[in-house]
Amino acid sequence: MIVVMKKEASTETVSMVAQKVDSLGLRSNVIVGEERTVVAAIGDERNGFQETLASLPGVEKVVPILAPYKVASREAKPEPTVLKALRLTLGGGHVGVIAGPCSVESEEQIMTAAREVKQAGATGLRGGAFKPRTSPYAFQGLKEEGLKLLAAAREETGLAVVTEVMTPSDVPLVAEYADVLQIGARNMQNYQLLQAVGETDRMILLKRGMSATMDEFLLAAEYILDAGNQQVALCERGVRTFESHTRFTLPLASVPYLHERTHLPVVIDPSHGTGKASLVPSMCAAAIAAGADGLIVEVHPQPSEAMSDGAQSLDPQTFRETMKLCQRVADAMQVELG
Amino acid sequence: MIVVMKKEASTETVSMVAQKVDSLGLRSNVIVGEERTVVAAIGDERNGFQETLASLPGVEKVVPILAPYKVASREAKPEPTVLKALRLTLGGGHVGVIAGPCSVESEEQIMTAAREVKQAGATGLRGGAFKPRTSPYAFQGLKEEGLKLLAAAREETGLAVVTEVMTPSDVPLVAEYADVLQIGARNMQNYQLLQAVGETDRMILLKRGMSATMDEFLLAAEYILDAGNQQVALCERGVRTFESHTRFTLPLASVPYLHERTHLPVVIDPSHGTGKASLVPSMCAAAIAAGADGLIVEVHPQPSEAMSDGAQSLDPQTFRETMKLCQRVADAMQVELG
Amino acid sequence: MIVVMKKEASTETVSMVAQKVDSLGLRSNVIVGEERTVVAAIGDERNGFQETLASLPGVEKVVPILAPYKVASREAKPEPTVLKALRLTLGGGHVGVIAGPCSVESEEQIMTAAREVKQAGATGLRGGAFKPRTSPYAFQGLKEEGLKLLAAAREETGLAVVTEVMTPSDVPLVAEYADVLQIGARNMQNYQLLQAVGETDRMILLKRGMSATMDEFLLAAEYILDAGNQQVALCERGVRTFESHTRFTLPLASVPYLHERTHLPVVIDPSHGTGKASLVPSMCAAAIAAGADGLIVEVHPQPSEAMSDGAQSLDPQTFRETMKLCQRVADAMQVELG
Amino acid sequence: MIVVMKKEASTETVSMVAQKVDSLGLRSNVIVGEERTVVAAIGDERNGFQETLASLPGVEKVVPILAPYKVASREAKPEPTVLKALRLTLGGGHVGVIAGPCSVESEEQIMTAAREVKQAGATGLRGGAFKPRTSPYAFQGLKEEGLKLLAAAREETGLAVVTEVMTPSDVPLVAEYADVLQIGARNMQNYQLLQAVGETDRMILLKRGMSATMDEFLLAAEYILDAGNQQVALCERGVRTFESHTRFTLPLASVPYLHERTHLPVVIDPSHGTGKASLVPSMCAAAIAAGADGLIVEVHPQPSEAMSDGAQSLDPQTFRETMKLCQRVADAMQVELG
Repeated sequence: MIVVMKKEASTETVSMVAQKVDSLGLRSNVIVGEERTVVAAIGDERNGFQETLASLPGVEKVVPILAPYKVASREAKPEPTVLKALRLTLGGGHVGVIAGPCSVESEEQIMTAAREVKQAGATGLRGGAFKPRTSPYAFQGLKEEGLKLLAAAREETGLAVVTEVMTPSDVPLVAEYADVLQIGARNMQNYQLLQAVGETDRMILLKRGMSATMDEFLLAAEYILDAGNQQVALCERGVRTFESHTRFTLPLASVPYLHERTHLPVVIDPSHGTGKASLVPSMCAAAIAAGADGLIVEVHPQPSEAMSDGAQSLDPQTFRETMKLCQRVADAMQVELG
Repeated sequence: MIVVMKKEASTETVSMVAQKVDSLGLRSNVIVGEERTVVAAIGDERNGFQETLASLPGVEKVVPILAPYKVASREAKPEPTVLKALRLTLGGGHVGVIAGPCSVESEEQIMTAAREVKQAGATGLRGGAFKPRTSPYAFQGLKEEGLKLLAAAREETGLAVVTEVMTPSDVPLVAEYADVLQIGARNMQNYQLLQAVGETDRMILLKRGMSATMDEFLLAAEYILDAGNQQVALCERGVRTFESHTRFTLPLASVPYLHERTHLPVVIDPSHGTGKASLVPSMCAAAIAAGADGLIVEVHPQPSEAMSDGAQSLDPQTFRETMKLCQRVADAMQVELG
Repeated sequence: MIVVMKKEASTETVSMVAQKVDSLGLRSNVIVGEERTVVAAIGDERNGFQETLASLPGVEKVVPILAPYKVASREAKPEPTVLKALRLTLGGGHVGVIAGPCSVESEEQIMTAAREVKQAGATGLRGGAFKPRTSPYAFQGLKEEGLKLLAAAREETGLAVVTEVMTPSDVPLVAEYADVLQIGARNMQNYQLLQAVGETDRMILLKRGMSATMDEFLLAAEYILDAGNQQVALCERGVRTFESHTRFTLPLASVPYLHERTHLPVVIDPSHGTGKASLVPSMCAAAIAAGADGLIVEVHPQPSEAMSDGAQSLDPQTFRETMKLCQRVADAMQVELG
Repeated sequence: MIVVMKKEASTETVSMVAQKVDSLGLRSNVIVGEERTVVAAIGDERNGFQETLASLPGVEKVVPILAPYKVASREAKPEPTVLKALRLTLGGGHVGVIAGPCSVESEEQIMTAAREVKQAGATGLRGGAFKPRTSPYAFQGLKEEGLKLLAAAREETGLAVVTEVMTPSDVPLVAEYADVLQIGARNMQNYQLLQAVGETDRMILLKRGMSATMDEFLLAAEYILDAGNQQVALCERGVRTFESHTRFTLPLASVPYLHERTHLPVVIDPSHGTGKASLVPSMCAAAIAAGADGLIVEVHPQPSEAMSDGAQSLDPQTFRETMKLCQRVADAMQVELG
């Protein structure tokens, strides 16, 4: 860390800060500049010392130098992590494709969706059984019945089942049926939930919070890794900004940025990232060109009959065409799709 | 709702949309404009119909007219709600003041803090026993031991204890010790948790998510109200924006805006809202002038020794001066402080 | 427009609003709902009537239905506009590539840059002669001398010269040397400047303001079109958000969104959009996959010697590799690059 | 500056960075940490060196230590600047109040407005003669005729005239009529305009750009100061965020923050800051409690007849009541209002 002193800080004040740095088990190095003095604090700064130092008299601000996460970092594990669940592979030259409806609504709906997305080339099936809904008056999902329908769809198609778990006490139940446990954007900092899924042996698809910084996103992954589960995929699903013509703003630069910082695979969700079905195909293609390790796409047999997220769901025909476009881009990028 | 059709939508397409509106139990009214046709859908639109209509062929967008929340709305209950817990009153001409450290760290720390803030005029004591921390490597709180220390501080001072609960399974334990259950910003959309605290008889202090819209904030309150608990206070604690000179951006216009929309009292958190102790006193005064029903302020006996949030905590002396300033502004606003 | 009345608005108040709508030359249609009454105002709403109606007693809000721009809209001109300047083509299946340094620094620098980018496949040369700089103490550009150097580079290479003009009085001078006049993000709403370039016969590259909405962006284009110049290309260069790991957040969904709304070609600037050279190649590829009509990329013979924007500039070798990657993606997308 | 090296940077690479630092006229100090090496660069860093260093091989990022502005800083001039124009005083214990319509529309309108706001206690009169409008189809102002009407209103009332100037070539004309030249938010980084007003002897009211950082805001002021004009007031008018229930988000913490950083007075614009007349009175009171040196408020004799910004304009009666509220808060804060 670099502790920047106020201009008027006296030599004694600087000295006290340096002593505090040393007392925290770090090593201090005082640098007297022309206008400001700074105190470099050398050592492992990931222990909350930043706030302690920031509250000392005479301190203007504290600038961290090291990334706050460890196990998730590329430095801890230079080679990329490749994750597999049944036919689904994320990373290592594979762009896994997870597709399916927002919510599981009925046996017919989920079986039709599963067959359609498999035929188009998907290797994972998404579908919500437990649904986090902004309004208490909206459809909240079929719950365990939905999980059973997902399992039946896997039985027939071989697709890996990806579904959300919303609260720690549901983790054992959802893990019984699902191949991949999804942590939704609203729960990215639900730490008990992160810990609970960290204690399972399932792959975790961790969605970025809608206003999470990259450090916060990677620290959320770190909670899962720290709890013992190394199978974590990061999912960029768009951030909240002043833009309102799309539901969220989808920053595809997250893909190369995360690849620089972490060994974990990066999945893009263009459905939530835009909120508009007409923008999804282009964003699927762009995500692959950006280097994504996976896609998760909402596909519904009849979007206008969907109980949730119909406006951002592709119909099966559009999804097939999107997959053809994606295949051409994947070939150009020399990666395997599906 | 207003369904805006695409320019090229044919009469048949418009007719199908109108039929769909009617089939949802709403009443359709087709308005043919010079450039566009719109279909007004009259009736209770709070059932997720918006997305259904948005996904129909020929539809450009759907504009909701009614607020999505009901019980929280001013229309449902015109007179303001006044909440009380021990000596703490929020609303109805009272600006309740909740103060104390970010985390409970030791018996001496919390007892000293409680005495200091009480003497300065606070009526509620804040202090975290279960701490949501961005990093798995940071201090996570004293847990039940912390709750016991808070209860002991209440015993001596009579201050209402305000403390966070992070997961549904902890609700009974925390409710046993606390007078007010705080839902943190990261958990504003943790729906199982909202439901669990909605089933208690404690006052709930619901913090706004860092990028939650006002509708989402009021819908989160609606979850608690809908579960049966009418004692909900809304806490504006700053939103995430491009600004980085403060930790968050504190929009005080939330106070009059929320007073227009809802009967629930509004509390301001200038500590998280700015992240800098030096900015807190002005923002306390400004919050009262803006019409806030309460303040929640971080005060630590020795901020530079705090285990969390030291940089935004006031020391007792500064808090006393802040309370004197606030008293003058409260007098000007003709409200009671404390 | 849809005028939403407050719940408590009386029949007389609604009637007065309807009369006001009619008096503005629009046609009113009162729709009485279960909870609210709305007044539809039919006709051309692009005359600032929205604010007038919003300020009437009893009005809660006014929702516009029509896009506020006309000439720029896809409805006004369904077929895409294709723009050409020398060898540079934007749109109509061509992805034009404009490359070069942030600032023109010297004859050797700009000539080397021009040769390098041409050889790699660019058809336009960027380079700033008049530089808008955040600090008054930073290098402000070579001004007319820079323009002359750009013209000399065009002379040798045949590349179209793209350079920024910052103030109306400089427009004639810059137009004398440049093939494409760039309006910078900070000047997107400098209306006198928009009008001045609208009166030239040069192609205009209009950069999106860093927090401009899409409607504001298209209205800025409308100022130029309205002044008589139909050669406007829109440039998405990233928006300002809470994200700080990149300089700006680059929303590639702008490409398909703008293609739905307007006939004008869309260019992507991944250099400003990310601020980091290491992220630029992926974003170039992704932009093409997203359907962009052009790229504008910062390339400097020696980035570490650049007088501005070195951190986001590619060196010639990296640019050549990026162009090879882009060529493969362009082939996949069945468009021509360069 | 602190140059943070990549983990894998070799000793030679670090050494080259240190040499580059020295060659720029700064002094290097290499600090070898446990995980990273950093190079402190000591000296005046305000010369664009940050980008140069950031583009060197082996460099991960560069962290500036010093504020980028000089003359505007509190360190350059510790005592607060007090600005006066006729009866209007900003700073030094005076909260100046500027009020009036968005646009000058007619003689009757501006004279009525001037008399009303003067009687209520304002000391400055606002009114736009040159109007920056998002749409080319909106009312653009009465131009010189408007300036003459403003001067006539000053003649009768003695109020200082505050009006916007939009382009460098209009500066002499506007300065002839106005006491205070306003730079609008959209022009905060129109550097030629900043320079032009910096060469006048008028007070300048510089509005913050809607997504400008505080450093950018103060650097814009620095352009004016650097051109020779020391009479600069900073105006916070709200920033663009994801919030849409208000037109902009008004961060009142800007007031104490700017007071820490700069000696220039700080004015708050609650009209643009909220966009809703009903929220303006509370925000006026809150601004004074936050320590603002001035207010600028939109007041129109008949808001529903306003040619622009009617929805955020107070009527004279509401303005009078607001001023009474403000007077009470000013008394509590021990400052003079008006």
